[in-house]
Amino acid sequence: MNAPATFKLLGLPGSIRKKSVSRAVLRTLRDALPAGVSMTIHELADVPLYNEDLEGDKPAAARALHDAVVACDGVVVMSPEYNHGMSGVLKNAIDWVSRPGYNSVLKDKPVMILTTSESPLGGARAQADLHKMFLSTLSRVAPGREVTIGGTGKAVVDGRLVDEALLKRILALLDSLLNEICLVQGRERRHAGGG
Amino acid sequence: MNAPATFKLLGLPGSIRKKSVSRAVLRTLRDALPAGVSMTIHELADVPLYNEDLEGDKPAAARALHDAVVACDGVVVMSPEYNHGMSGVLKNAIDWVSRPGYNSVLKDKPVMILTTSESPLGGARAQADLHKMFLSTLSRVAPGREVTIGGTGKAVVDGRLVDEALLKRILALLDSLLNEICLVQGRERRHAGGG
Amino acid sequence: MNAPATFKLLGLPGSIRKKSVSRAVLRTLRDALPAGVSMTIHELADVPLYNEDLEGDKPAAARALHDAVVACDGVVVMSPEYNHGMSGVLKNAIDWVSRPGYNSVLKDKPVMILTTSESPLGGARAQADLHKMFLSTLSRVAPGREVTIGGTGKAVVDGRLVDEALLKRILALLDSLLNEICLVQGRERRHAGGG
Amino acid sequence: MNAPATFKLLGLPGSIRKKSVSRAVLRTLRDALPAGVSMTIHELADVPLYNEDLEGDKPAAARALHDAVVACDGVVVMSPEYNHGMSGVLKNAIDWVSRPGYNSVLKDKPVMILTTSESPLGGARAQADLHKMFLSTLSRVAPGREVTIGGTGKAVVDGRLVDEALLKRILALLDSLLNEICLVQGRERRHAGGG
Repeated sequence: MNAPATFKLLGLPGSIRKKSVSRAVLRTLRDALPAGVSMTIHELADVPLYNEDLEGDKPAAARALHDAVVACDGVVVMSPEYNHGMSGVLKNAIDWVSRPGYNSVLKDKPVMILTTSESPLGGARAQADLHKMFLSTLSRVAPGREVTIGGTGKAVVDGRLVDEALLKRILALLDSLLNEICLVQGRERRHAGGG
Repeated sequence: MNAPATFKLLGLPGSIRKKSVSRAVLRTLRDALPAGVSMTIHELADVPLYNEDLEGDKPAAARALHDAVVACDGVVVMSPEYNHGMSGVLKNAIDWVSRPGYNSVLKDKPVMILTTSESPLGGARAQADLHKMFLSTLSRVAPGREVTIGGTGKAVVDGRLVDEALLKRILALLDSLLNEICLVQGRERRHAGGG
Repeated sequence: MNAPATFKLLGLPGSIRKKSVSRAVLRTLRDALPAGVSMTIHELADVPLYNEDLEGDKPAAARALHDAVVACDGVVVMSPEYNHGMSGVLKNAIDWVSRPGYNSVLKDKPVMILTTSESPLGGARAQADLHKMFLSTLSRVAPGREVTIGGTGKAVVDGRLVDEALLKRILALLDSLLNEICLVQGRERRHAGGG
Repeated sequence: MNAPATFKLLGLPGSIRKKSVSRAVLRTLRDALPAGVSMTIHELADVPLYNEDLEGDKPAAARALHDAVVACDGVVVMSPEYNHGMSGVLKNAIDWVSRPGYNSVLKDKPVMILTTSESPLGGARAQADLHKMFLSTLSRVAPGREVTIGGTGKAVVDGRLVDEALLKRILALLDSLLNEICLVQGRERRHAGGG
């Protein structure tokens, strides 16, 4: 009998402050994952500014991020919206792992995109940039209705996402991510919610 | 008799590597500025990753960038295109100076946007992101046909932009930037190329 | 004594259905305009699909739109969001009036952008496209916080925008449009809310 | 023995003028398709402006487009760039076939995106809009390096794309589209260039 299929996810929070909503949402999601799915949350605080001169001898934090992307089945990107785009912290991190162009470890990697802001828009304006970026790296953006996490003053309390309806929408998109992983890796489709 | 009007520009190169094309183009532009116009090139290598927790006591490099924006009449942003967007280095720097939202030192500040890439496209795909960002900060993007600096393998030699046609197009956009500064500051319009 | 400065605006609704929210909002705005400001709402239903072959002898509806843009001091564009972008109806209309490139009647024309959708996002994802389009025509997007009109099931009743807070935000952006008109036309600044 | 797998593609030219470059490129591609692949070029000239009031009783041309999307295995979209975005003609056509939202005939449909302009940029600025649109319809954008068709004054002669290098890049992206069709439909992968 075969061992059950498992899914190793990498969660990337696009903010590094202590009370980061991105981290809070990723942690809440991590604790709500279906059986067989695990997620490592990878902090970006130590990743230095991207410098092409160091490509041949990457700084340790950039190399660690690279290795984490290689090791996972799919990436869950969670960015705050700053100035109508993704955070510079996240963009900078992806700049490191996206080389060589069109043939990096992000190629064919399934990616799920989430954004957040205090406003009701929830980072909707940053999603187009994130899509553009991950299409350029030939990653596979998990198809599904965009999930934006707004009104975070109420939705996130004590470092947890407490809005159940939002969590449900996130889990629906996660289901799409898992199916995308199956599709790309040639696994059989999962049966969502199956026992 | 009045002193001649002067224009102090701030050049921001979005790449920090030694042979940065962005820096090379800015330096070439700096040496070709019309009379009365000066430009300080401000390196972004020391700006740490944006962290909202430090807003009240900004790191020195973030504060220096803030002060440089305040001191200038207009900003010349020059970004490489990474993954079809602006560099994370540049996005991160702007994240620092764009607070508080809609009312930062970038508000009403005239901005000129340039992009570059090795391909013939010259970073065209990053320009929309840059526009979106600087509209969100209520800055004033200098109107004019977009200038993208491509084919940099040939156009930039020994740290200088040697493509005269391209430099001419950059100077035409600079003219639009200077006129925008006049407009916003209530100065009389310049006479481009006037004697 | 001089006649008071007046502002003639052109309102373009991006939807042509009978119960168009775009038209409803424009009509509500038209009835709430400050003294000295007027708006003509120009329907786009008769504008044919853009065909470059007809540039020399434009269809009547395309010519009428062109003339309306020439005659106004500023344009108020109001688009529904379809498929995360502006409506094809609006894009098609602008395709007619944007020639010749970089030198059309839209050049230097102040433009105010509004979007709408039934969802709480209010068309936020279409605004970047609208900005990109009007920067490409060298128009002047009125600076200000984006106004998105969402939740239209409740906000619009019997063909009127009944959400007073939203109308107030629209009028604040209108104020920016009027100031932009003054700036571009060299008029003295208005005193918002002045008596 | 099984019949060989076949692929029925739908080509949508985003311009309706007689000497449309979009149509010319699609025709050239149609004549260069690998064995087992066919393409119908569907003109958009008769599609009326989108009007939600007519959803229940769609105009014949809108219905024909809808049926053509249903009947095909994948869509090849080819848009000129107008005002830094896709053509209104194309946006309008997609507005018709994208209902109901997130569950239209475009859902899960593989799509290949091409753009063109006279400039060397080849419509690069329109690609982000096209990506955004087809992600919103939950279609599957064929992964691959973007193909932009620029310098069309020389590349297209007598209604044919004569630039062999460009055609080769288009065929490489087509290969990605065919593989995406296989992936989504659960077919075995093709062997590109196989005999």
